[in-house]
Amino acid sequence: MPVNLAPPQPSELYPVPGVTLGVAEAGIRKANRRDLTLIALAPGSRAAGVFTLNRFCAAPVQVCKAHLASGAIRALVINTGVANAGTGAAGLANAQATCAAVARELDVAPEAVLPFSTGVILEPLPVERLVAGLPAARANLRAEGWFDAAHAIMTTDTLAKAVSRRIQLAGRTVTLTGMSKGAGMIRPNMATMLGFLATDAAVAQPLLERLVAEAADLSFNSITVDGDTSTNDSFILIASGQAGNAEIADTGSDDYRVLREAVVDVSIRLAQAIVRDGEGATKFMTIAVEGGRDRDECRKVAYAIGHSPLVKTAFFASDPNLGRILAAIGYAGVADLDVDALRVWLGNDAESVLVAEHGGRAASYREEAGARVMAGSEITVRVDLARGAAAATVWTCDFSYDYVKINADYRS
Amino acid sequence: MPVNLAPPQPSELYPVPGVTLGVAEAGIRKANRRDLTLIALAPGSRAAGVFTLNRFCAAPVQVCKAHLASGAIRALVINTGVANAGTGAAGLANAQATCAAVARELDVAPEAVLPFSTGVILEPLPVERLVAGLPAARANLRAEGWFDAAHAIMTTDTLAKAVSRRIQLAGRTVTLTGMSKGAGMIRPNMATMLGFLATDAAVAQPLLERLVAEAADLSFNSITVDGDTSTNDSFILIASGQAGNAEIADTGSDDYRVLREAVVDVSIRLAQAIVRDGEGATKFMTIAVEGGRDRDECRKVAYAIGHSPLVKTAFFASDPNLGRILAAIGYAGVADLDVDALRVWLGNDAESVLVAEHGGRAASYREEAGARVMAGSEITVRVDLARGAAAATVWTCDFSYDYVKINADYRS
Repeated sequence: MPVNLAPPQPSELYPVPGVTLGVAEAGIRKANRRDLTLIALAPGSRAAGVFTLNRFCAAPVQVCKAHLASGAIRALVINTGVANAGTGAAGLANAQATCAAVARELDVAPEAVLPFSTGVILEPLPVERLVAGLPAARANLRAEGWFDAAHAIMTTDTLAKAVSRRIQLAGRTVTLTGMSKGAGMIRPNMATMLGFLATDAAVAQPLLERLVAEAADLSFNSITVDGDTSTNDSFILIASGQAGNAEIADTGSDDYRVLREAVVDVSIRLAQAIVRDGEGATKFMTIAVEGGRDRDECRKVAYAIGHSPLVKTAFFASDPNLGRILAAIGYAGVADLDVDALRVWLGNDAESVLVAEHGGRAASYREEAGARVMAGSEITVRVDLARGAAAATVWTCDFSYDYVKINADYRS
Repeated sequence: MPVNLAPPQPSELYPVPGVTLGVAEAGIRKANRRDLTLIALAPGSRAAGVFTLNRFCAAPVQVCKAHLASGAIRALVINTGVANAGTGAAGLANAQATCAAVARELDVAPEAVLPFSTGVILEPLPVERLVAGLPAARANLRAEGWFDAAHAIMTTDTLAKAVSRRIQLAGRTVTLTGMSKGAGMIRPNMATMLGFLATDAAVAQPLLERLVAEAADLSFNSITVDGDTSTNDSFILIASGQAGNAEIADTGSDDYRVLREAVVDVSIRLAQAIVRDGEGATKFMTIAVEGGRDRDECRKVAYAIGHSPLVKTAFFASDPNLGRILAAIGYAGVADLDVDALRVWLGNDAESVLVAEHGGRAASYREEAGARVMAGSEITVRVDLARGAAAATVWTCDFSYDYVKINADYRS
């Protein structure tokens, strides 16, 4: 059951000029489910992406990287059911065959196609079934296709995840619409996390590449469900350039600042949606670490808390088990951390409760105050490392019976 | 329900000359349970220890380190119920007061006492109750006290863990008896894991310190239940020197080799017992990684597999979900790992099944063969990184509904 996550409404997902989406039932792994999505981009569109750092990176990820390096992108093709990861040379050939088939269907170059797969690892991709489904997906291409596409890319997700926003750039209305999927094997180190965000803004390619990396760092690369970095994580930012704005080419410009804020905002909402729909999640946790010497050590501490099964099961029980949080901070790997100097709060700024200082429980802390915060479905843990000015925030969910059930049953 | 772990039998736990143990009900956290253990060592005994690397290391750990540095050890005192961790200056004073009280009781120096606590973190240690229990523990001191002591140091353990062995050193019979506790918050680095191993061998202090580190590395530091490194982990090796053997002072000697093999063997059995009794465990997993450039990268890969909630839930389901294992290998942090060269087997040597090679599923692999291995309660995952001669083995357990239940309920 997702934590405070409503399904997207078709009317709230704005079309992005230059971008059309179509879905089809290809029977990749199961019959009678939309499992194939095709996205067509108008000529002149630009794309940039970030991908999993898992050494077993999937065949489609390898092909995406090569195709992004080779030139203009005109289409994306996404299948669910089979991840085409851990599939060796045959998997690579299947991903390339997929691109070739899309290229024929849309009359573009094979290198202009980006392939994405999500699902079971180590199973061969049934490329014939995928290819056979392409004509139906092409026939379904439409600017209003985001809602159906967001559903067609789901695996263990219980809800589709899609967000739209409109901003003004120098008097022109610019649209951003994105979608994401993923509920398990989520610790993007950008995982089977897929994120797609399209805008019609005109953006120079170097800025687009910088923007996708910055947005990924602050969104998809700041979430975790189970600490498992997928073989297929991909996040793609598309700029169709059809808004009619003057091309953004300067990171110092007001236009870049406005666009960046919107891209980061939509990316964070898409990334948080994955955590809210995390496998078995009943709580949404924000772990905000500040006062670090650098962002890396803040992230280490935040991830240590966010990955601890003991912390996550305590949150599932609404138990303010502070000792488990302190233990995780202590083993996070910040070698010279002064545990007497750091402080820990539960709750957001408005009603936060100081729970630990001077190496132990805060004198002012009362269990009732902690229990009140823990009873909510949105819980913030704030840590001040008291050794610098850097900060980082990680979002995660709790660890419930249903997580075990979902993952002991998946594949069956 | 522990995995293939029988309770120790009193008759199989040999007394160690020079070592007596006594237990008492001090009412530290709950009434009517033995929660206080006292161990007295004869004059001339030596001790060496390794302790948690958690920055929030508990007050008793801090005191142990100081006392081991200051000279001869004559007593150990262990309480359950409260870990005296995250308790600041008051916690340190309580640990010191505990030592002082034991010193008065046994007429030894306070610095000759090593204190150990395990239980809930952040709660103040009720030192008055502990001290009030000491006379009863002292009155209970006896060489045959290992069985009762192994029970008195338990927390969420379902079974006591104790192992004895006798070896011959130059014609003299030498005894080794050890006990351990711990079921959760287990990823000792040097965790609330406690291990105690005593022998009556005469061993020079530098060798004892080397031996405790080597044995910990190969045993307690090679297990994980949930990846959480405790604030209180301690492993102590005691040599009472009463066996009458010539003092072992040369690492090249046959005596050292024989003693080392026995210490490592008993340590591994005590450490494995913790995993077999891991919270909610239904499977015992051995993760053996070989062919690495160094031991550190082998351990990284083994721990990545052993900590993955996706792998652990698949093992709970007896599901040979190879993709999850490969994904964990891929994100283990071995930067230039060649995934096409590595190979993965399920099962022990006698009946192992090659499951992955050439970057994907082995051509010879049949799901039935994997399923047969997974149906057992003892499962080996063997990985050959194919890049060097180093190896490392990590032992862990699966992740079940009961793990969540135990940790969502603990403290209540």
